[in-house]
Amino acid sequence: MRQAGRHFLQIPGPSAVPDRILSAIGRQTIDHRGPDFAEVGLKALNGMKSIFKTEQHVFIYPSSGTGAWEAALVNTMSPGDKVLMFETGHFATLWNKMATKLGIRTEFLEGDWRGGAEPDRIEARLREDTNQEIKAVCVVHNETSTGSVSPIADVRRAIDAAGHPALLMVDTISGLASIDFRFDEWGVDVCVSGSQKGLMLPPGLSFNAVSERAMKMAERATMPRSYWDWHDMVGPNETGYFPYTPGTNLLYGLNEAIDMLHEEGLDNVFARHARHGAATRAAVRAWGLEVLCARQGQESGVLTAVLMPRGHSADAFRATTLQHYDISLGNGLSKVADKVFRIGHLGDFNDLMLMATLSGVEMGLAKAGVPHESGGVQAAMEHLKDNPQARVAAE
Amino acid sequence: MRQAGRHFLQIPGPSAVPDRILSAIGRQTIDHRGPDFAEVGLKALNGMKSIFKTEQHVFIYPSSGTGAWEAALVNTMSPGDKVLMFETGHFATLWNKMATKLGIRTEFLEGDWRGGAEPDRIEARLREDTNQEIKAVCVVHNETSTGSVSPIADVRRAIDAAGHPALLMVDTISGLASIDFRFDEWGVDVCVSGSQKGLMLPPGLSFNAVSERAMKMAERATMPRSYWDWHDMVGPNETGYFPYTPGTNLLYGLNEAIDMLHEEGLDNVFARHARHGAATRAAVRAWGLEVLCARQGQESGVLTAVLMPRGHSADAFRATTLQHYDISLGNGLSKVADKVFRIGHLGDFNDLMLMATLSGVEMGLAKAGVPHESGGVQAAMEHLKDNPQARVAAE
Amino acid sequence: MRQAGRHFLQIPGPSAVPDRILSAIGRQTIDHRGPDFAEVGLKALNGMKSIFKTEQHVFIYPSSGTGAWEAALVNTMSPGDKVLMFETGHFATLWNKMATKLGIRTEFLEGDWRGGAEPDRIEARLREDTNQEIKAVCVVHNETSTGSVSPIADVRRAIDAAGHPALLMVDTISGLASIDFRFDEWGVDVCVSGSQKGLMLPPGLSFNAVSERAMKMAERATMPRSYWDWHDMVGPNETGYFPYTPGTNLLYGLNEAIDMLHEEGLDNVFARHARHGAATRAAVRAWGLEVLCARQGQESGVLTAVLMPRGHSADAFRATTLQHYDISLGNGLSKVADKVFRIGHLGDFNDLMLMATLSGVEMGLAKAGVPHESGGVQAAMEHLKDNPQARVAAE
Amino acid sequence: MRQAGRHFLQIPGPSAVPDRILSAIGRQTIDHRGPDFAEVGLKALNGMKSIFKTEQHVFIYPSSGTGAWEAALVNTMSPGDKVLMFETGHFATLWNKMATKLGIRTEFLEGDWRGGAEPDRIEARLREDTNQEIKAVCVVHNETSTGSVSPIADVRRAIDAAGHPALLMVDTISGLASIDFRFDEWGVDVCVSGSQKGLMLPPGLSFNAVSERAMKMAERATMPRSYWDWHDMVGPNETGYFPYTPGTNLLYGLNEAIDMLHEEGLDNVFARHARHGAATRAAVRAWGLEVLCARQGQESGVLTAVLMPRGHSADAFRATTLQHYDISLGNGLSKVADKVFRIGHLGDFNDLMLMATLSGVEMGLAKAGVPHESGGVQAAMEHLKDNPQARVAAE
Repeated sequence: MRQAGRHFLQIPGPSAVPDRILSAIGRQTIDHRGPDFAEVGLKALNGMKSIFKTEQHVFIYPSSGTGAWEAALVNTMSPGDKVLMFETGHFATLWNKMATKLGIRTEFLEGDWRGGAEPDRIEARLREDTNQEIKAVCVVHNETSTGSVSPIADVRRAIDAAGHPALLMVDTISGLASIDFRFDEWGVDVCVSGSQKGLMLPPGLSFNAVSERAMKMAERATMPRSYWDWHDMVGPNETGYFPYTPGTNLLYGLNEAIDMLHEEGLDNVFARHARHGAATRAAVRAWGLEVLCARQGQESGVLTAVLMPRGHSADAFRATTLQHYDISLGNGLSKVADKVFRIGHLGDFNDLMLMATLSGVEMGLAKAGVPHESGGVQAAMEHLKDNPQARVAAE
Repeated sequence: MRQAGRHFLQIPGPSAVPDRILSAIGRQTIDHRGPDFAEVGLKALNGMKSIFKTEQHVFIYPSSGTGAWEAALVNTMSPGDKVLMFETGHFATLWNKMATKLGIRTEFLEGDWRGGAEPDRIEARLREDTNQEIKAVCVVHNETSTGSVSPIADVRRAIDAAGHPALLMVDTISGLASIDFRFDEWGVDVCVSGSQKGLMLPPGLSFNAVSERAMKMAERATMPRSYWDWHDMVGPNETGYFPYTPGTNLLYGLNEAIDMLHEEGLDNVFARHARHGAATRAAVRAWGLEVLCARQGQESGVLTAVLMPRGHSADAFRATTLQHYDISLGNGLSKVADKVFRIGHLGDFNDLMLMATLSGVEMGLAKAGVPHESGGVQAAMEHLKDNPQARVAAE
Repeated sequence: MRQAGRHFLQIPGPSAVPDRILSAIGRQTIDHRGPDFAEVGLKALNGMKSIFKTEQHVFIYPSSGTGAWEAALVNTMSPGDKVLMFETGHFATLWNKMATKLGIRTEFLEGDWRGGAEPDRIEARLREDTNQEIKAVCVVHNETSTGSVSPIADVRRAIDAAGHPALLMVDTISGLASIDFRFDEWGVDVCVSGSQKGLMLPPGLSFNAVSERAMKMAERATMPRSYWDWHDMVGPNETGYFPYTPGTNLLYGLNEAIDMLHEEGLDNVFARHARHGAATRAAVRAWGLEVLCARQGQESGVLTAVLMPRGHSADAFRATTLQHYDISLGNGLSKVADKVFRIGHLGDFNDLMLMATLSGVEMGLAKAGVPHESGGVQAAMEHLKDNPQARVAAE
Repeated sequence: MRQAGRHFLQIPGPSAVPDRILSAIGRQTIDHRGPDFAEVGLKALNGMKSIFKTEQHVFIYPSSGTGAWEAALVNTMSPGDKVLMFETGHFATLWNKMATKLGIRTEFLEGDWRGGAEPDRIEARLREDTNQEIKAVCVVHNETSTGSVSPIADVRRAIDAAGHPALLMVDTISGLASIDFRFDEWGVDVCVSGSQKGLMLPPGLSFNAVSERAMKMAERATMPRSYWDWHDMVGPNETGYFPYTPGTNLLYGLNEAIDMLHEEGLDNVFARHARHGAATRAAVRAWGLEVLCARQGQESGVLTAVLMPRGHSADAFRATTLQHYDISLGNGLSKVADKVFRIGHLGDFNDLMLMATLSGVEMGLAKAGVPHESGGVQAAMEHLKDNPQARVAAE
């Protein structure tokens, strides 16, 4: 039986794709070697530099974000190299597993999944690494499984304070274009991202931003690689082309997304997400529930992970909510499976969509018999009313 | 500066067009005289019979709903004929003006804009019309300017009770496919509707449903007519064609809409609208505001018109709400201009969209400095939680 | 069983709708009373003035072109008024019938369907009309049933030469935006057009261009009218709005079409059509068939009507061609039913699409067993090669 | 200045994407972990089995076809393993380079780029490989750079005749869904394909079909791999899910493509391509030019590569043709750069589109001053007329 109205896709990515982007993706494919393609390619490559805030290198892959993780590793590492990773949550763990699988030695600083990476522990570990075995420090910027944000600039400072030459590699698959990220200013060396989060696209494109230093390191790295090889990209990219067939239609959408982000203004985008995150946490508190991220100032503007009351299944709650209110919420992953649900408030999103989302959660909690106080929706609305977004002029 | 997220189009029509229908409308136009068109035309014509609940005649015009008003009049009337109309609100008034303009004499039973047409007054007037000058009784089913519903079956009973031969002509432009309507069972003779309300299409198609009796009357009616002439339509329609170029792409959309309505089940569609109307009224009461429709049982499931507190401008409120919360609300028309705003809850709409809508109203009231109690959103949510929609099997 | 590849819609309208326009039409409907609509409305109204080449009035109806015929008549005429019409073909005949049906007296100058209207015969008739009973001269600019073009400027000169005050009313439903038309310069008073031909839209919008003189005449005209009334339009149109719900989504498409026409340059558009008409006639001659239009210089750039060899059914040929080569050709209408087929070469069309079209005709002639010489495709190709289009800078 | 009409994208892939598929791709993205996704995933995975004609394994990657080349190698090989490849043209050469780059030893049987792989030479080489160093034989099914087809079933017979255990790995990126391919019947072990050719999609999805034997070999293969790992896919694929975020919107398109292919019938699709290849070659002969593929029976139905007369630049010709006739033709690659141009006649294509394409070539040859006979278009048309496609009932 058909359900009326729009589905609310409030997982922490893919985010709902705006009509402008869907329409762009639906345009006819063109010759990726023809003269008209150059404009498409250059706009995408240069546009992504403006999003990463870098004047160094950006590479675009037809792949999921997982592919860009692999690209970051195989371009910079040689078999047996060691990397230091920080366990912010499920995705940090997956990246760690991937590195191991590819034959890289990893050291995984244990975390409690309730905050971002800890720069002081990274610094301490690097100071111990006197023979500089560690080739890269890998952290997740916005940990999609927990809703916590790592202080990337502080991680760079920690590496520098330790006087260690390790690269700084950052996964900002779910953070980019939703929360502040500054590749050059923060001294990041390799960055990994994907299309289906803040960029508001369907999945299928992934990105590396790469520093000159990492490009140099890639020249000496001996991991076997072909599809992901940065150096094969550089030449064709200069004129807007790619070494193999690019994902033309998703690039159409990407160019639209880049325009939309600049039309709104990146700082407005970031402020919008932060404000929606705060309103969501106000709702969670009013419901008498607990936000998974326990470190103040590290709560994500992209998503909010919420702990279920003991004895209640998050997945049963999500199923009820989907069935009765046509809203998809994110599930808890591995360690927190069935114990948390995640509310995505990223992408092309506004106050009323947030109110719809939180109403779905509040009605779902009631429908599923989860103990809670009512009033979360009201609390979020008060927050929004009391904290109007100050908009700055777009770029 | 770009606003993020979806616009909420909560005027009482056009309603937001679902993606399935937009996609259908975007298909390539075909030869409207070719063999493939027959299927398109027959599906639309027969489908609309299922929506009107009639086995008599349905005609489809490429025009706005206003055109179908004119069609109803020029097909059945001769210059100087008299019709009896009921002033339910702005749209009844406009139809009345049109009739006058076309050279038809009208008698307009005065109403207070706070309820539907009154069968007893109609009956009384018809009893006085002993020489049967009145050729038709014209009432608006769902008065879009006030949010009141006329009891159509009772109007038919009133005409019959008076033993009067007048036709029953009904405007259900904004009622059809949102609230119950039964052309044959209720003994309606001519019905007027449009595409951009419950049918979830963009504007541009309009409809007449016509009884055999009205078809007969049309044979003797002498108003000049060509574009709107029913009798020119009958022949081509039999095989799915039209006497002049039809609105092919909107017909694609119409066929998709008909499918969607039957996939949900018309009774479920009606129950959904009724429930959303009730939840909206719960919100209005909680805000301490007044619903324009004052007659219990006649409140519309399509829209709710809300009276502003004295001294406050409805249009200023609507402008504020549009600017800050990206939601379009309906304005007050003529007699109630600037005194009421209208909340549309029609078309492809669900619980969370309603919650978004009411949140936009509540936050807008605060932002515009309109005196009100907070808690309307909460009250609506309680109503929705306490009154889950019982869904019946779709046709 | 699915046929592969694109269908070729080569009837003389609707023409195949370009993707840019389909995409525009598929955008979300907005509030036609809201602030954002003004831009849509003004762009459409002013844009259509640039297409009609007028600084006087343009009106846009949600209706088929047939509606705009009716609008032209009911706004300017009073019951019993007389108009002079010229029988260029089927559509002139239909307009004549409509006028009669609406209670207007018509005089129909007989034609042979093989050329445009004849200014000298019109002048002669007007000279006879000493008491100026004739209120308007009505001619079809591009007669879609025959592929002949009437010399509109010469008709104006004929009226003036006769010193007659009759209005000049012109149907350019299929001519506008494909062949030269100059409302103001040519002294036209009322013009009728539609969306689905040179404007490259689906059917559903129609247009009147109206001179100040005709606007004046409308003030005194007493035909009953409401939907079509020009004077109700003037006020709202000034700020980009309409007196009743406009066909918003088709207006999106119209605005895209207007942009496309100016991007190409109207003179380039006209030259393109003329060249394709000439190439098509070269093909017809090579096939040993006859073009219906027998008056040199009046052959249409929009379509070419071709006479079948005696004893052969045009409709059987068209059915064969549709079945085997997935191309829709236009049928012969009324007097020439089954005797001619029509090749549409209008709208968003280029050299290779023409070659495809003519190949479909040539292969279809063979498949249907119609006597002909081969070589038409070759002849058209030679024409195109030998007569490259000189393109002028777009506006 | 805008060019009117449709662009003809006649490179040998991407092929022009049909509207049905563009529309499917433009649908809203859904939760790839939610209950509704299973249907999407299962339909794609099972559908692709029906296209490959296999009951073994199919894997779908969000990547270009190049990625699926890499996947085929890294799943089956260990560092230092040897493969035997056949130089059919540019793409065989690129695959060879990739293998080398990944640390696989390759032996490359030299070819003249004018035909498919030669089974007898493969057999001879395998017979010499007495200690079975060669782990796989890699051939390109349809060599996109030359328009030649390799006899895959004969290659399998050659391997078997040599009694050699090497895997048979086949690149059918541009052959699949355009020319006959039978994974199971022909004994292929690993197959590589992509979305933007016979599957009529934009680029961005790639495929491996894999035999049980190759799956077993993958268990022992030690090339580092993660993104491409087949074994990670098997579990999630069983219920329609993927181990990482899939390319949801391209999967929507893929499912539409699979439906379209079966609606037409794969055998009809293959016959259509073969017939268009033959008609194209008839045109080339009539022009007095030479088809690059010199081996009778191995000419491709997907594309035809044409040798330029000595001293004439293929790229200058292609640029002229693009500028004047808005058609993109394929360029010559590496060894035959600027010496051949390639006519794509693949994907969603029909007789009239072919006639348009060949007209573009013939007019372009004249415009670019390339010596040739006219009459190619005529010859192709004669071929099509004389050889109507016998259609069999679709599956």
